[in-house]
Amino acid sequence: MNLVLLTEKELVDGLALEDARSIHLLHTVGLKVGATFHIGIKNARRGLATITATQPKLIFTVKFEDEVQKRFPVTVIVGLPRPQTAKKVLHDLASVGIDKIIFFDTEKGDAGYAMSSLWKDREWIEHVDKGTEQACSAQVPEVIRCSNLTEALANIDASAWKVALDPYEASQALGESAPTANRAVLAIGPERGWSAAERVFLLKYNFTLCHLGDRILRVESAALAGSMIILSQLNVWEKHRSLAP
Amino acid sequence: MNLVLLTEKELVDGLALEDARSIHLLHTVGLKVGATFHIGIKNARRGLATITATQPKLIFTVKFEDEVQKRFPVTVIVGLPRPQTAKKVLHDLASVGIDKIIFFDTEKGDAGYAMSSLWKDREWIEHVDKGTEQACSAQVPEVIRCSNLTEALANIDASAWKVALDPYEASQALGESAPTANRAVLAIGPERGWSAAERVFLLKYNFTLCHLGDRILRVESAALAGSMIILSQLNVWEKHRSLAP
Repeated sequence: MNLVLLTEKELVDGLALEDARSIHLLHTVGLKVGATFHIGIKNARRGLATITATQPKLIFTVKFEDEVQKRFPVTVIVGLPRPQTAKKVLHDLASVGIDKIIFFDTEKGDAGYAMSSLWKDREWIEHVDKGTEQACSAQVPEVIRCSNLTEALANIDASAWKVALDPYEASQALGESAPTANRAVLAIGPERGWSAAERVFLLKYNFTLCHLGDRILRVESAALAGSMIILSQLNVWEKHRSLAP
Repeated sequence: MNLVLLTEKELVDGLALEDARSIHLLHTVGLKVGATFHIGIKNARRGLATITATQPKLIFTVKFEDEVQKRFPVTVIVGLPRPQTAKKVLHDLASVGIDKIIFFDTEKGDAGYAMSSLWKDREWIEHVDKGTEQACSAQVPEVIRCSNLTEALANIDASAWKVALDPYEASQALGESAPTANRAVLAIGPERGWSAAERVFLLKYNFTLCHLGDRILRVESAALAGSMIILSQLNVWEKHRSLAP
């Protein structure tokens, strides 16, 4: 864990010793009074915490960084995959700093996927949080569930650069054309591919169909690689700044 | 499994019914006589197999594609990570069609990683094979182990475009500069980052230090994303061609 996400209240109160984060910091990592670790308030500031007490709670002071890190202006739309795959997508897209992830139920998808505890019990939150902590960031993507592609497309910025990955029907590779806007929407089909009706909707909404070459990638690999190529093209990356004072 | 890798001998003899591939095709997928599946001969031809008998062995005829798919002209050098991470790197880099993967023992790395059954018992072969089968490809990367970075650098093409990922020292983002050759070498540091001595070697070998933005990514995510951005920049991608006749 490169950073620990906290609430504003926990920042004031400290963390209970039985909290998983305290156990990790004090027992797994072995931090003592005076040691430092990175903290972040969800979708707000990050800072360097210094432990001031380990009894009766984990208490720390924080030196916050001046500038708040930003989420990148990219929305990723994904056909709802099996829960095991969705967990990786949530983690990995959070870790690269995507702004919004929209999952939509697909024509060819399995209805059972939506009934998973990942969605029913809101376990998805844990996976975007972990991806964000891995990235040493506090910027957690917004996650939306839609019942079909049309509903998902109603949630996007119409003026964004819109790309849909399609290994079969695309006539150009992702990266071949320059972005048409300074923000983007990337649509990733379901595991069994886009349906004919879904392709019609994508074209109606001015998506460009792009491929990632002649290899068939897993959904999570296509989501990560496609997002990163788009982020690279949007030219939004700055070098990592250390949180140390 | 999108494709089944076979040897030339298995192509002639068929597959024993107790072979894991036969069990997968006949029992998991439920194929019968007359059904088709994709096969590939390692680093050679792919084709569409049609089952002609399921007793006493799995026997099939194959219609091969005319053109042999190629590996892409990219070598990836990775500081030897923990075996669990190395498995993902092997799988994912095979699935995107990388030519060569070189793992080197690092100054900051754990000596135990190299003692894993992944390397001792050559289990790594299974992971590059699975990644290749996932991609519906027969092109398996060459995998090399080196005892340090200097030895790894002796194994690369000196005239290639050379990029090393470094979230801390890089002054430019990957994708910001155009490739300087039509083949590339991508170097990914160990989990704890490059050592000072390793950085000196990289610069001596004319590597450009690049970053992937201000998020700290897992080694396997950086390897996949970095490779895909470079493949996109090298402009080597063609659309997936179906193997069906």
